[in-house]
Amino acid sequence: MKKAPKYSFHDDYSEGAHPRIIEALSQSNMSQQSGYGDDDFCADARKAIRSLIGAYDATVCFVAGGSGANLLAIASHLRPHEAIIAAEPGHIVGKEGGAVEATGHKILVEAGTEGRLTPEEIQSAVASSSEFAWQPKAHMVFISNPTEVGTLYDKSQLEAIAATCKRLHLLLFMDGARLGAALTAPKNDLTLKDIYRLTDIFWIGGTKNGALLGEAIVIKDPTFGADFPYHMKQRGMLLAKGRLLGIQFRTLFKDDLYFRLARHANAAAAKMSTALTDMGYKLWMPRDSNQVFIIFPPALVQSLARDFEFFVWKNLSETALVARLVTSWATDLSEVERFCSAVEVWTHRNT
Amino acid sequence: MKKAPKYSFHDDYSEGAHPRIIEALSQSNMSQQSGYGDDDFCADARKAIRSLIGAYDATVCFVAGGSGANLLAIASHLRPHEAIIAAEPGHIVGKEGGAVEATGHKILVEAGTEGRLTPEEIQSAVASSSEFAWQPKAHMVFISNPTEVGTLYDKSQLEAIAATCKRLHLLLFMDGARLGAALTAPKNDLTLKDIYRLTDIFWIGGTKNGALLGEAIVIKDPTFGADFPYHMKQRGMLLAKGRLLGIQFRTLFKDDLYFRLARHANAAAAKMSTALTDMGYKLWMPRDSNQVFIIFPPALVQSLARDFEFFVWKNLSETALVARLVTSWATDLSEVERFCSAVEVWTHRNT
Amino acid sequence: MKKAPKYSFHDDYSEGAHPRIIEALSQSNMSQQSGYGDDDFCADARKAIRSLIGAYDATVCFVAGGSGANLLAIASHLRPHEAIIAAEPGHIVGKEGGAVEATGHKILVEAGTEGRLTPEEIQSAVASSSEFAWQPKAHMVFISNPTEVGTLYDKSQLEAIAATCKRLHLLLFMDGARLGAALTAPKNDLTLKDIYRLTDIFWIGGTKNGALLGEAIVIKDPTFGADFPYHMKQRGMLLAKGRLLGIQFRTLFKDDLYFRLARHANAAAAKMSTALTDMGYKLWMPRDSNQVFIIFPPALVQSLARDFEFFVWKNLSETALVARLVTSWATDLSEVERFCSAVEVWTHRNT
Amino acid sequence: MKKAPKYSFHDDYSEGAHPRIIEALSQSNMSQQSGYGDDDFCADARKAIRSLIGAYDATVCFVAGGSGANLLAIASHLRPHEAIIAAEPGHIVGKEGGAVEATGHKILVEAGTEGRLTPEEIQSAVASSSEFAWQPKAHMVFISNPTEVGTLYDKSQLEAIAATCKRLHLLLFMDGARLGAALTAPKNDLTLKDIYRLTDIFWIGGTKNGALLGEAIVIKDPTFGADFPYHMKQRGMLLAKGRLLGIQFRTLFKDDLYFRLARHANAAAAKMSTALTDMGYKLWMPRDSNQVFIIFPPALVQSLARDFEFFVWKNLSETALVARLVTSWATDLSEVERFCSAVEVWTHRNT
Repeated sequence: MKKAPKYSFHDDYSEGAHPRIIEALSQSNMSQQSGYGDDDFCADARKAIRSLIGAYDATVCFVAGGSGANLLAIASHLRPHEAIIAAEPGHIVGKEGGAVEATGHKILVEAGTEGRLTPEEIQSAVASSSEFAWQPKAHMVFISNPTEVGTLYDKSQLEAIAATCKRLHLLLFMDGARLGAALTAPKNDLTLKDIYRLTDIFWIGGTKNGALLGEAIVIKDPTFGADFPYHMKQRGMLLAKGRLLGIQFRTLFKDDLYFRLARHANAAAAKMSTALTDMGYKLWMPRDSNQVFIIFPPALVQSLARDFEFFVWKNLSETALVARLVTSWATDLSEVERFCSAVEVWTHRNT
Repeated sequence: MKKAPKYSFHDDYSEGAHPRIIEALSQSNMSQQSGYGDDDFCADARKAIRSLIGAYDATVCFVAGGSGANLLAIASHLRPHEAIIAAEPGHIVGKEGGAVEATGHKILVEAGTEGRLTPEEIQSAVASSSEFAWQPKAHMVFISNPTEVGTLYDKSQLEAIAATCKRLHLLLFMDGARLGAALTAPKNDLTLKDIYRLTDIFWIGGTKNGALLGEAIVIKDPTFGADFPYHMKQRGMLLAKGRLLGIQFRTLFKDDLYFRLARHANAAAAKMSTALTDMGYKLWMPRDSNQVFIIFPPALVQSLARDFEFFVWKNLSETALVARLVTSWATDLSEVERFCSAVEVWTHRNT
Repeated sequence: MKKAPKYSFHDDYSEGAHPRIIEALSQSNMSQQSGYGDDDFCADARKAIRSLIGAYDATVCFVAGGSGANLLAIASHLRPHEAIIAAEPGHIVGKEGGAVEATGHKILVEAGTEGRLTPEEIQSAVASSSEFAWQPKAHMVFISNPTEVGTLYDKSQLEAIAATCKRLHLLLFMDGARLGAALTAPKNDLTLKDIYRLTDIFWIGGTKNGALLGEAIVIKDPTFGADFPYHMKQRGMLLAKGRLLGIQFRTLFKDDLYFRLARHANAAAAKMSTALTDMGYKLWMPRDSNQVFIIFPPALVQSLARDFEFFVWKNLSETALVARLVTSWATDLSEVERFCSAVEVWTHRNT
Repeated sequence: MKKAPKYSFHDDYSEGAHPRIIEALSQSNMSQQSGYGDDDFCADARKAIRSLIGAYDATVCFVAGGSGANLLAIASHLRPHEAIIAAEPGHIVGKEGGAVEATGHKILVEAGTEGRLTPEEIQSAVASSSEFAWQPKAHMVFISNPTEVGTLYDKSQLEAIAATCKRLHLLLFMDGARLGAALTAPKNDLTLKDIYRLTDIFWIGGTKNGALLGEAIVIKDPTFGADFPYHMKQRGMLLAKGRLLGIQFRTLFKDDLYFRLARHANAAAAKMSTALTDMGYKLWMPRDSNQVFIIFPPALVQSLARDFEFFVWKNLSETALVARLVTSWATDLSEVERFCSAVEVWTHRNT
């Protein structure tokens, strides 16, 4: 008898796409469209996004994935001698295979606090690169919201960073792989309009919020915007059937679907987080969005791993691991309950 | 009253995907899978492809598009001081936004004959780069089958090129964006097994033969193969939901679907080509696969453009343009007839 | 008995440096100076050059060699998706090991006429790259004066190119590896002030006109100028002992030495060219500066090669080769005579 | 009245070259030589170096500067997806303007101990990059001897690193900008033969030990060696007058000059270090070679700065700075005495 597959809290891209997206693909399938993002569906998706950010002249481009979005954003906005500042846990620092360096740019790494970069760190990185040509010249700041460890920037923090960037002549770039989760989190006080206003370039993630694939990049500078397709083509990221991305974002931004999916992911994480902390387990990071970083003893991790998949983020000590539990638009709440019960059972038996 | 949209022979990526692919996406949608190509569907697709090429240890990786496949193949197989030889009409030469150069490599361009590179040209390019370090050192040969102008390499031509490469210590790389059309063309005498045997790396195009997106790269050298995901990640081309590519190739290589779709495209092109040459129009290039390069007077092009979309490839003289007409898996044969009738009507009226 | 070494007309960098430069190195040797170009000698050299170009705020940077100067000029002025236009014989096209491509940029190659790029070719290259992202976007024009085949741009030609660049929003870059020879040629009507006025960036070659090594890059845009040392450092071209370059250019631009050396080179080439054409040999290219491109029968080349070194540039036919004879600041006029006599003797015997 | 210039202990490249080098340049000046390193002087220098390392088939190439040597060594030995491991104070990490990243490679940074990288750190960096393609794959280790903070690797340390590299399939690269100072240090137990045996590529610095400019790169792998000039040309680092580098290294390796110069530098540093520690000042790092890293109160630094130039390396606290004092082949021992007296006088007055 084949064992039932484990339920996965490993990430937010384990399933396909929200059924409405599959349906939209099916319905639009035989319509002939122009290639390379110049189709009716991309046009509709652009219109929806421009309306949400309140900027009818912003450039909106669609690419297949997040590492691609990041390297394009950075390489298109920097000259060769310019560097980007990021917090150590930042996705571009240790999770993208050296993609930024492969475009020729150094990342000036600062420690960060709970995953967030601070204005002081930005200032310090600039100082280290402006004395002499020993370091490439800092010209951009990378943040993601939520951060790599699931925490959020609030409006005052983002405004402080944006003001620092303005003062130091730095561009501000936000990776929004999980931006839906950020914007629908209970403690969030930012809007898409704020983000557009405060950054120079950011992207809205589809892959981790119900799309098959796709991220929508929003570019403020009209010259950089007009040239962006050249960069996409040159990096192999201008899809022939750009329609595939357009259809998905059109669907996600209809009837508030994008935000509804993100709310579900956050609610599932909240439920899990509350249950686990109620049992006495400590969070390694504040649980702000759809990722729960919880401190578990190794034996509990081993026990849970029989029925569930999740990522061991970090080894704190011989008796403490950090497990990362990710929920998504597709998370089955009964599986969250089953997971919490398994923790509870193990805890009773072992304490 | 809104005018009916024009029917497009502009390219082979105007529609979505073959309905079986949409269906497969729908059926597999809620299955949880590992990310980054490590899923069951990619495993199945790999198995199918390895069986077709007769090499159970070949590396098979999936990427979203053709320019990406090309730049990955080249950058992963060359050292910085090495160059790639290509024929002037080659896709990497003038159609990919300088993607090869963006990875640091020069293309040594030879003229080609009917789109094909010859062993003599390869030898000449090597000579020009081995005298001194004036030119980067030639180390790879780029061909596509069909070529950029729709012509084919036959087995003796491919064997001659492969032998030249072996003798001159060059790697041989084949872009197979339309490989289905090549392998199902009436005059073709190559098999996937031949191509695997004679090249070092090649890819099988999905985007232009019924997939939403996706190309399957086949790598012979096991060391290069094992490291390929590092290159994919570094260039932003390792999709989180690699399943999307796996599902499609699994579907395409079931029940001979891939080749059936290509046969349809070729048949449509043959029908169109025969009809047009019967009317006295001359082909600019031999019509070997699913692209018809036909010489039309400008007035005819203008007249047809009211009802059809197609690409004007080249301006031969004041009285002669080359129109490129592309058929695909999705081409409606009645539209081919309507197109040919329109040509016929215009021809009667104007001659 | 050891055979006397052959006398070389192979190039203009066969000897060391003009004796005044060696003397200046000796005299300045034990003075302590700041590194990286921030020394008194570089300051003096900058002052001299700024005075010659009539621009007291231009940025002047010194690098060791010509390929380095070219790649820095191009990489510092282009964004990744931008390309540079050059004539086919251009040094960056086939003589620099793919250095431009190694910085990520494609060269859009036009044929050129007698080595010169024309405004029409520039326009055509722009057209080919602005239709769509198929080609990287042309943003810079590369010329050298003299051209790679020793011909010159006159003022009207340079003004026409500059006007075309302005109209098409292109930067104009002049490689001046042999700029001394150009500016002191009898038919020249350009001044350093003209060149500064008409280009965005250019360099004045030292290596081929009496220096041990060194080229002086002149940058008009103050922002690009201020950042240039970052590019130099990043490409490994900021010499610790920048003084070595400063001392040389200070010496070359004292007492008109730079131009006197170039005049000598031109005069030697004129003498040789006149003697050879008087004997009935045809020039392959007009002899405008210090390079003589002469058409010789292969047997004559073979005979001369016993006593002289020179470069066979091109094979025109079975009975005609193009020999390139280069003179320099160091050319011994009696060796020019000996060479011409050898040609004369062979000619008498063989015709 | 103009103030006497300050005496500089800022670095080891403040003066020109050892007088013998100037003399050799003068004597060889009018000899005609082939370009690009194919001259008699480079041949002699190669012979001398091969004899010192005991490897008559090693490739020896000469380049102008250290950052260039480093980026060439790294870029020529790595494929795009490969990374290099270095200790945090390593020159390539924070002193070369992002030159390594500009060739597309990420540096995996480990903390290091007294400037040295340990086998454990190498192993840990490999582990972090071999789990998945999140990080580029570690394939090379960068060390310098002396380290960036003047400390040395002894034979057992180098052997341990080399063994770790062999076990983990990593290449070992040693930057030898100040290798003369390392090999002539009293506590050194390594020879050039050991270094050749234990590394894959290393270089012998000329710029910081009496040359005008120049570093000699020694490459073990014959294939990499044969192709090295292509890399040099491509990065703009193949000097036309390669003779300039050959003459200098030929001179340095005659009559033990290279090592005599380094011994002088070390002796001057020892004298200074002993005097300062005798006065009670603490070394920040062990003084192994020609750099003295000493902890001074800010007021002392300020006082000394009126008569001497040196670099403030680090701010330890409000009352303690690290001053870096560098001696060289050219250091005047009476200036060392004058410096120490100045410290002594200040110390007496202020304590």
